[in-house]
Amino acid sequence: MKEQVQVSKAVIKRLPKYRRYLEELKKKGLDRISSGEFSKLIGYTASQIRQDLNNFGGFGQQGYGYNVDSLYKQIGIILGIDHDYGIVIVGSGNLGQAIANYMHNYGAGFSVLAMFDIKPDVVGRRVNELVISDFGELGAYLAEHTADIGVITTGAASAQNAADKLVAGGVKGIWNFAPVDLQVPRRIALENVHLSDSLHSLIYYINRSHPSNSAPSKFERGAHPNC
Amino acid sequence: MKEQVQVSKAVIKRLPKYRRYLEELKKKGLDRISSGEFSKLIGYTASQIRQDLNNFGGFGQQGYGYNVDSLYKQIGIILGIDHDYGIVIVGSGNLGQAIANYMHNYGAGFSVLAMFDIKPDVVGRRVNELVISDFGELGAYLAEHTADIGVITTGAASAQNAADKLVAGGVKGIWNFAPVDLQVPRRIALENVHLSDSLHSLIYYINRSHPSNSAPSKFERGAHPNC
Repeated sequence: MKEQVQVSKAVIKRLPKYRRYLEELKKKGLDRISSGEFSKLIGYTASQIRQDLNNFGGFGQQGYGYNVDSLYKQIGIILGIDHDYGIVIVGSGNLGQAIANYMHNYGAGFSVLAMFDIKPDVVGRRVNELVISDFGELGAYLAEHTADIGVITTGAASAQNAADKLVAGGVKGIWNFAPVDLQVPRRIALENVHLSDSLHSLIYYINRSHPSNSAPSKFERGAHPNC
Repeated sequence: MKEQVQVSKAVIKRLPKYRRYLEELKKKGLDRISSGEFSKLIGYTASQIRQDLNNFGGFGQQGYGYNVDSLYKQIGIILGIDHDYGIVIVGSGNLGQAIANYMHNYGAGFSVLAMFDIKPDVVGRRVNELVISDFGELGAYLAEHTADIGVITTGAASAQNAADKLVAGGVKGIWNFAPVDLQVPRRIALENVHLSDSLHSLIYYINRSHPSNSAPSKFERGAHPNC
């Protein structure tokens, strides 16, 4: 196996977006695209695009540009989307069920193996072909089954406990939707979707785009650099 | 009104996290915290914390630190969370309903005014006190009602059309969950939650944390800087 290249987080964050745009281009029947054309579409500079993709071996050819289908597939391989992943979901309220359906409809690659919840009125409900299990059974389930990804859609108070059980049960990554920052061993991949953080940023910009609506600051500017 | 200070996007992205940690500290009954203690908790350097908060007027006092309750409230005011916001949701499948419930349970500040969908089997369903309306009624609804935020939880193909109707209807911000980058006028605040991008990043790191599982690269490294 070739030595693994260390690639910055910023580049990894951009790869899914490249793939998303390439998927659209494929749908439109486009065969190839130059970094210049790609730049206009995606909003990164052409130089940025070339630099990003060179991290993985420079897929383009001078004077030709990028082959859309090939680049799409190659980014999928880099991201690892060509594998299959088994998923368990902890927290099976509305958001957990939405994620289950999202995974279910995603197409190949992702299988929701089991769903868990702590609430008696949620346990036993059916989502697609699955029956939601009691959270108390998570440990025993993972002792008998292999899951790659644990999705946490519990409330803040239950999330760390859920993460601990998922890690003990051997998952390789956690997709966390609970509004807390989880403590997990370094070997565990962790990706957070903090909805409230995103909503609060939106609110901030709404008020700033419309200065007449924004709350006047009651606070004086001033530096207290040593507090 | 005081002149508005231009604050970097990176700082705005961190403010909700500060607020989230301060909320936890409040729950634990803590009155005050130094930037050093806060640093250990939140994982930013003390200097970063002081610099971030000085953007808005330096809330700390030397030798005392930050008053937890006061800083929590002040960040809420800066973000504009002390206002009320009317919300319409376009796309009322599982994710749209999850967001509706999320908003409903958020407490003061957010009211879901109306929900829309294009699918006949979804239109007419009830979510909390609301009945889901036909997407065709969105324009007429916004001509008669004021909404601050439009949430888009449609599929990729419908999202830009939904955004256009929301903008024409006078919303100030869009919270977009569809896997596309929307075109909106500059005055409109736009915040994206790209679930697939987040999932793909997770998958990438899962394979990199477990090199034995990762797909070997089929591609040679090499620079093609002018493609």
